[in-house]
Amino acid sequence: MSDKPLVGILMGSDSDYEIMAEAARALREFGVPFEVTVTSAHRTPERTSEYVRQAPGRGIRVLIAGAGAAAHLAGVVAAETTLPVIAVPIDATALNGLDALLAMVQMPAGIPVATMAIGKAGARNAGIFAAQILAVADSSLRDKLTDQRQTMAAGVVAKAEKLQERLRKDGF
Amino acid sequence: MSDKPLVGILMGSDSDYEIMAEAARALREFGVPFEVTVTSAHRTPERTSEYVRQAPGRGIRVLIAGAGAAAHLAGVVAAETTLPVIAVPIDATALNGLDALLAMVQMPAGIPVATMAIGKAGARNAGIFAAQILAVADSSLRDKLTDQRQTMAAGVVAKAEKLQERLRKDGF
Amino acid sequence: MSDKPLVGILMGSDSDYEIMAEAARALREFGVPFEVTVTSAHRTPERTSEYVRQAPGRGIRVLIAGAGAAAHLAGVVAAETTLPVIAVPIDATALNGLDALLAMVQMPAGIPVATMAIGKAGARNAGIFAAQILAVADSSLRDKLTDQRQTMAAGVVAKAEKLQERLRKDGF
Amino acid sequence: MSDKPLVGILMGSDSDYEIMAEAARALREFGVPFEVTVTSAHRTPERTSEYVRQAPGRGIRVLIAGAGAAAHLAGVVAAETTLPVIAVPIDATALNGLDALLAMVQMPAGIPVATMAIGKAGARNAGIFAAQILAVADSSLRDKLTDQRQTMAAGVVAKAEKLQERLRKDGF
Amino acid sequence: MSDKPLVGILMGSDSDYEIMAEAARALREFGVPFEVTVTSAHRTPERTSEYVRQAPGRGIRVLIAGAGAAAHLAGVVAAETTLPVIAVPIDATALNGLDALLAMVQMPAGIPVATMAIGKAGARNAGIFAAQILAVADSSLRDKLTDQRQTMAAGVVAKAEKLQERLRKDGF
Amino acid sequence: MSDKPLVGILMGSDSDYEIMAEAARALREFGVPFEVTVTSAHRTPERTSEYVRQAPGRGIRVLIAGAGAAAHLAGVVAAETTLPVIAVPIDATALNGLDALLAMVQMPAGIPVATMAIGKAGARNAGIFAAQILAVADSSLRDKLTDQRQTMAAGVVAKAEKLQERLRKDGF
Amino acid sequence: MSDKPLVGILMGSDSDYEIMAEAARALREFGVPFEVTVTSAHRTPERTSEYVRQAPGRGIRVLIAGAGAAAHLAGVVAAETTLPVIAVPIDATALNGLDALLAMVQMPAGIPVATMAIGKAGARNAGIFAAQILAVADSSLRDKLTDQRQTMAAGVVAKAEKLQERLRKDGF
Amino acid sequence: MSDKPLVGILMGSDSDYEIMAEAARALREFGVPFEVTVTSAHRTPERTSEYVRQAPGRGIRVLIAGAGAAAHLAGVVAAETTLPVIAVPIDATALNGLDALLAMVQMPAGIPVATMAIGKAGARNAGIFAAQILAVADSSLRDKLTDQRQTMAAGVVAKAEKLQERLRKDGF
Repeated sequence: MSDKPLVGILMGSDSDYEIMAEAARALREFGVPFEVTVTSAHRTPERTSEYVRQAPGRGIRVLIAGAGAAAHLAGVVAAETTLPVIAVPIDATALNGLDALLAMVQMPAGIPVATMAIGKAGARNAGIFAAQILAVADSSLRDKLTDQRQTMAAGVVAKAEKLQERLRKDGF
Repeated sequence: MSDKPLVGILMGSDSDYEIMAEAARALREFGVPFEVTVTSAHRTPERTSEYVRQAPGRGIRVLIAGAGAAAHLAGVVAAETTLPVIAVPIDATALNGLDALLAMVQMPAGIPVATMAIGKAGARNAGIFAAQILAVADSSLRDKLTDQRQTMAAGVVAKAEKLQERLRKDGF
Repeated sequence: MSDKPLVGILMGSDSDYEIMAEAARALREFGVPFEVTVTSAHRTPERTSEYVRQAPGRGIRVLIAGAGAAAHLAGVVAAETTLPVIAVPIDATALNGLDALLAMVQMPAGIPVATMAIGKAGARNAGIFAAQILAVADSSLRDKLTDQRQTMAAGVVAKAEKLQERLRKDGF
Repeated sequence: MSDKPLVGILMGSDSDYEIMAEAARALREFGVPFEVTVTSAHRTPERTSEYVRQAPGRGIRVLIAGAGAAAHLAGVVAAETTLPVIAVPIDATALNGLDALLAMVQMPAGIPVATMAIGKAGARNAGIFAAQILAVADSSLRDKLTDQRQTMAAGVVAKAEKLQERLRKDGF
Repeated sequence: MSDKPLVGILMGSDSDYEIMAEAARALREFGVPFEVTVTSAHRTPERTSEYVRQAPGRGIRVLIAGAGAAAHLAGVVAAETTLPVIAVPIDATALNGLDALLAMVQMPAGIPVATMAIGKAGARNAGIFAAQILAVADSSLRDKLTDQRQTMAAGVVAKAEKLQERLRKDGF
Repeated sequence: MSDKPLVGILMGSDSDYEIMAEAARALREFGVPFEVTVTSAHRTPERTSEYVRQAPGRGIRVLIAGAGAAAHLAGVVAAETTLPVIAVPIDATALNGLDALLAMVQMPAGIPVATMAIGKAGARNAGIFAAQILAVADSSLRDKLTDQRQTMAAGVVAKAEKLQERLRKDGF
Repeated sequence: MSDKPLVGILMGSDSDYEIMAEAARALREFGVPFEVTVTSAHRTPERTSEYVRQAPGRGIRVLIAGAGAAAHLAGVVAAETTLPVIAVPIDATALNGLDALLAMVQMPAGIPVATMAIGKAGARNAGIFAAQILAVADSSLRDKLTDQRQTMAAGVVAKAEKLQERLRKDGF
Repeated sequence: MSDKPLVGILMGSDSDYEIMAEAARALREFGVPFEVTVTSAHRTPERTSEYVRQAPGRGIRVLIAGAGAAAHLAGVVAAETTLPVIAVPIDATALNGLDALLAMVQMPAGIPVATMAIGKAGARNAGIFAAQILAVADSSLRDKLTDQRQTMAAGVVAKAEKLQERLRKDGF
């Protein structure tokens, strides 16, 4: 985390850390400064409100909220700000994250929340999407995003080549 | 509604009125004074907080919250009070109310919300359940609840008799 | 369990004990006396009826029922009493507790059941909600509930601080 | 309905009549005497118990129970008898009958309920299945069931022929 | 298995044996002779047809079919006979048995299949339900079914007592 | 339909005709001769078997099967032939076609069924896919398929242009 | 639409226009210039690619993609650009939009898509969210977003007052 | 893999290899030459397009695409070719493959994708179905398919016999 974070990553419980660290990793890859904290829509509503209200003044421009179960955190955060809020549903109950997904994505008209996939893929994409938002006004970040796409594509090609070895090894 | 309401019925949108009026009707049958208002977890978070914080001081002892979609109202209300909060999921989107149900019932440990069935049956039961809560310390209300059960049972018997006529009419 | 229980915790099978013990723990934290037993809607319908009918006479004011699969216990209990009945759906089949959830929450109009989340979170919340119901007429219990909320909020703040250490350790 | 019914058709609400009449029609086609009544697992638990306990003494050998929502009727009936109980889930809520289906079919070990399809198809099949059970000890009923299968198959052939006309009319 | 089986237990794959053995165990408890085989609706359609057609001639009166995935076995069996067919959906794919459940229970009008719960509970109930069908014309089997209910109820009472010990041990 | 059909379209009920006519229309557009009939996996199992067994001898090379509910038709057909079988799930019950979809697509290893979307889109695609299969060995059919893709793409462009008018009309 | 659009609204079919017009309306309210077109991931893949690749050069900074069924449009668009892509799932099949929702929100790691609610609420929120993204670097747009929140909150208060009249009229 | 492959097996990620190898195995059993590669609809859209466009020229006649999550690969491939495309949904997220299934099977009218079951059973069936397509114009392949069916049927009979031993061993 840097002195002047642009992105705030919130999680409803410290047990969400393993998942939400993926968002942090993505932001670090792009050199986007961020901060991370735990705050709950239900257990610390005032702390959550205060955090969100103070965020713009501290330079935060995008918020990421990860939560499981009846995941209200992203919606509650979005209700207090017009900063873009990105939601990461977390698989934290018997219902495989479907509860968190629906509790995040089905926001009523007026208060948008940008929902990502359930779990680590969604958390990583939340970090990338935050960078994409900031890149709208930052051409060097745009270049980094383009580079990362090329690296990712090269990775697929490398895996395709490696697969040929495995196929031979497996006798195909 | 009476001068000194004991139950506060909240709905996230005035389009929920047809459903939530069932809760009001149930409370009126039992003579429990109540009040009804519209407040949104997302569009009016401060209004919602203020309502909930002032409620106990005005004599409110039970809260009922109806909402559809990513239905955060009951959870947001419960986060601000230790009064019992009863939730009514409303079928307001393409997903038949499953989104509202999961967004209400899957509350994380620490902040309970008592969820009823989706729609009118749930709203009526929310009213009855609020009366059952108040009846814990009100024996005359207990008697009314018992009477209502007997009336309801008598209604089933009456319908069973009426069914015999219909069966004959239909030639069975 | 105390001499004069105010809350009765029922479970459909002794295999539900690990889950339902969370309700007992919550009640113990608030000093609310309770009792626990096993009774099945399907295997011991008479035992269940008798328990419920005798409960008010023995001083029971709130009932909690946990069950899995086609979870009829809470509904069957609610059919026999006007005491508030709190339901805890248990994940006991291949369907992840969705069967128990729907079998509990979708009660028809007239016989309310207050459904909590699936599993341990729901069981703990059932205990807290029972305390919230009793607190309607017990101001010292209200104070304990408020205290517990503050403890819980303090716990979130402590976890947020601890998270900063972990972030540093993980090199963020 | 005849003087000495062999099958009892129960429904949780008179609003289920349109659906459950299909079971009655099927039994009438096979000449199996039956009776029909309304009784609720939740609103008239005693009436339901009494009905079920007296049923064998009055000659009833199979029970059919149709219900919607948190459909406990079949399970509650099965808990009171060892007669075969056939369940018909009814689409009576926003959840399209999935709630009734799971609340019926997911019975725990020990108390079986034979669940049919949601709605009219299920109700008709409940009537046929009741006849199939009785036919285990009634060879003339077996013959009727075989005849009905042949009639049904002939109906498919007739429809296949009629379809050719329609195809020509539609220019295929 | 006895010389003259009354119930035929079919499974679509030998991997279903662990589940379907529960049906066999239930029948053995009631002294109902049965036979068990593997036959597939898809891989051995002729073998399945032949088995079902010959079954009545060999004295089989009830059929139980367990299958997973797109579980067609019970429906295919029911299409070839008017004997009662009991279906056991098996959790054999990523979809937790919901595929097998719907593929069994949603039979169209005319060809009933009596569906039990997913997995072992359903298999055991299939065995008990087969006994309940046979008991319609066998009073000694009726007595055994009644005895088993009492044993089962006594088991619940015993577990309830044992639970008190555990509660004390756990400090409640 | 032509003298020498290459594709056989089967439907489980004549009520599926409106949906399955889309498959016929697609085949007619490509000039692929076909035949259409009604046959049921459950009500006419022998007729279904016979049809499928005789199909190759009559020149049929691809089969399309549409059915709703516990849709076994495609699987039962596939069990009797190694011709490619295309399945169209039909929304014919309260469960919106999810039952038919799962009963078709979740075929066990060994007997493939190629499942299309629920309803008319799926039926049309079944017709196109049958043409694509036949085009593997028919270059003129390949050309027709390519032409149809271009027509379809041109249709999208035309709609995009027409949309601009509508946007102006709506004042955007 | 203005001369220099900043947001591109894409829809997979012109039948999605009624839904997607909500996004256009939201953007118009905030004075954000936009363009709208029809392009399909499946029927016009090249047209879609070309549109997306040329978009940044023409000044487009945010893309909104609405689609139903197996809704690939947003993902296909996101694969071709690092501009932020907002997805609107449309209820266009028997499955109530759940298919479109999952096909949009469950994007794999690396290519984020910001998913909104199913249908009109989601389309309106897509427009607002696009404005929120642009507002990161546009303080006058931030002010408009804040104003709109206040207008929306005032609307809730007005509805709450109007509800009191209705309650009186309905005799509560 | 042979010099002149007829079937191209694509997977969105090398982590899908274990599943998709089942398709390769099935093709090898039938002596159908094939090739296997990794290409992603989202991370390498151009690579995917190029592969598909060059495939027919290299002699590929059928394509198999396996993917998880928002599984767009099969649809994206089908959009670029009129070769038959077979889809294998892979269980790669918290949602058990339901996301991949719906994202594949619910293709809109015009661009068919032939969807198989989720996971290994689906992958094996994809290989068999590719062989069935090629067998439309290859009688020796038809014979191999028929042989494989007989082997498979014999396997069921063998398992049925082996089951008798197990039953005896288990004391039935």
